[in-house]
Amino acid sequence: MKIVETVEQVRAEVAKARKGGNKIGFVPTMGYLHEGHASLIRRAKEENEFVVVSIFVNPTQFGVGEDFETYPRDLARDSDIAEQAGANVIFHPTVKEMYPSEYKTYIEVEDITAKLCGTSRPGHFRGVTTIVSKLFHMVKADRAYFGQKDAQQVAVIQQMVRDLNMDIEIIPCAIVREADGLAMSSRNTYLSPAERKAALILSQSLFQSEEMIKNGELDARKLRNWIKEKIQCEPLAKIDYVEIVNGVNLEEIEEIKGDVLIALAVKIGKTRLIDNIRLEV
Amino acid sequence: MKIVETVEQVRAEVAKARKGGNKIGFVPTMGYLHEGHASLIRRAKEENEFVVVSIFVNPTQFGVGEDFETYPRDLARDSDIAEQAGANVIFHPTVKEMYPSEYKTYIEVEDITAKLCGTSRPGHFRGVTTIVSKLFHMVKADRAYFGQKDAQQVAVIQQMVRDLNMDIEIIPCAIVREADGLAMSSRNTYLSPAERKAALILSQSLFQSEEMIKNGELDARKLRNWIKEKIQCEPLAKIDYVEIVNGVNLEEIEEIKGDVLIALAVKIGKTRLIDNIRLEV
Repeated sequence: MKIVETVEQVRAEVAKARKGGNKIGFVPTMGYLHEGHASLIRRAKEENEFVVVSIFVNPTQFGVGEDFETYPRDLARDSDIAEQAGANVIFHPTVKEMYPSEYKTYIEVEDITAKLCGTSRPGHFRGVTTIVSKLFHMVKADRAYFGQKDAQQVAVIQQMVRDLNMDIEIIPCAIVREADGLAMSSRNTYLSPAERKAALILSQSLFQSEEMIKNGELDARKLRNWIKEKIQCEPLAKIDYVEIVNGVNLEEIEEIKGDVLIALAVKIGKTRLIDNIRLEV
Repeated sequence: MKIVETVEQVRAEVAKARKGGNKIGFVPTMGYLHEGHASLIRRAKEENEFVVVSIFVNPTQFGVGEDFETYPRDLARDSDIAEQAGANVIFHPTVKEMYPSEYKTYIEVEDITAKLCGTSRPGHFRGVTTIVSKLFHMVKADRAYFGQKDAQQVAVIQQMVRDLNMDIEIIPCAIVREADGLAMSSRNTYLSPAERKAALILSQSLFQSEEMIKNGELDARKLRNWIKEKIQCEPLAKIDYVEIVNGVNLEEIEEIKGDVLIALAVKIGKTRLIDNIRLEV
């Protein structure tokens, strides 16, 4: 496995791999890889001969006062995980390589970026779509793999790819969880032991919601209130949002029917965590 | 030469052409082709084995009250001109093919889109970059050809391609003029005989500016005022802007030195015309 830092180098590696007629899989990440990322890389390697993993903490998707500076970084550890999972190349550019001075271009997906995480993180998805589009143009992969934990991110990227006619297949992959249910996230590392326990309130309320739906609860407002009340019982938790929406256009629904996404963002202490379930009802 | 209307068809034509290892040239247009467009197509054909010409009057780059509805259209005539110039495929999609319902994504190039034409046509360049990016993703050409008459458009597209790491070469091509100097434009067809004569004020003031620079005039403010006064002497002309800027970042300059762009937008009657000269001083 090779680690490269420039656009020119990653282009050259992909061009070489392409020559044999190989398919290219791409896994964009912000690094500090965990089993969730590893599962994306393994899946990419199953479905493509050559896999590129990007590791880049993208400044344009962090807001003022967010954790860009402190976001965990560990390239040596990431290299081991990526290589074991089957990556052929890690692309690890500098901020200057991605955003030279005189940089001026941004991609905006309207409407669905304003909901859910968009409310408390204005500009976040603009940063995501911009960097993902840049990476897509560099790597020119056949398929790109994204974790369903960032459900809104997946919906936004699928919308961008569809709208801008990008020639790449987006593969959303299931959330990977710790044994006790907590969705894996690089930000879990911020949690104290007490917070780590309190964080289970996210997955537990989602799992119980799923049970309630299976038992016939189809009123989205009632279910949403129930989730909110449950989370509010956890003293370390502070709700950012609890939303029950259509899984494609993220519009609020009244009746739990069709493609349903239940998405949460909750602060546990100072750490903002997200989790969701998506189900066909 | 083939005329196709869907994204799928144009992709298929290009994929077929690619198989022989051919290079693809692309000329995006709004149709109503004139000798300026023909010169782009001929150049594309000289430098690539296979040439795609798109003809699409793009609604998102027209503002309220502009001429989207009345913009001249004549596919039969355009087909003849494109075929004679060497086009292999015309891509002529419907508005619905390009902007299906639920369309939400736009590309914004900041700063340089706010100057010159951006002042009187807010949103225009957002429409241009969005449609051009969509077309680039569909056609996946090696090179795309743009007329230097739309100097700001060329600068904006070059900025977008650079910023988003698009793998395509942008080839700006010299302005093609009528025998008397008027820059060719599909909108010249709007001019009455008297207006057609009055329209010469644009090119004449540019040509004379070039002479004045050659004779040692290096004060941009003085030259700009001279151009304005000259144009104001033409009763049918109403200045939108006269700007003397750097040719790459479109920033106003005080001294005429380096890469200089003198750009004009002038209304002749109801028709807004643009023209420019770019020179190395």
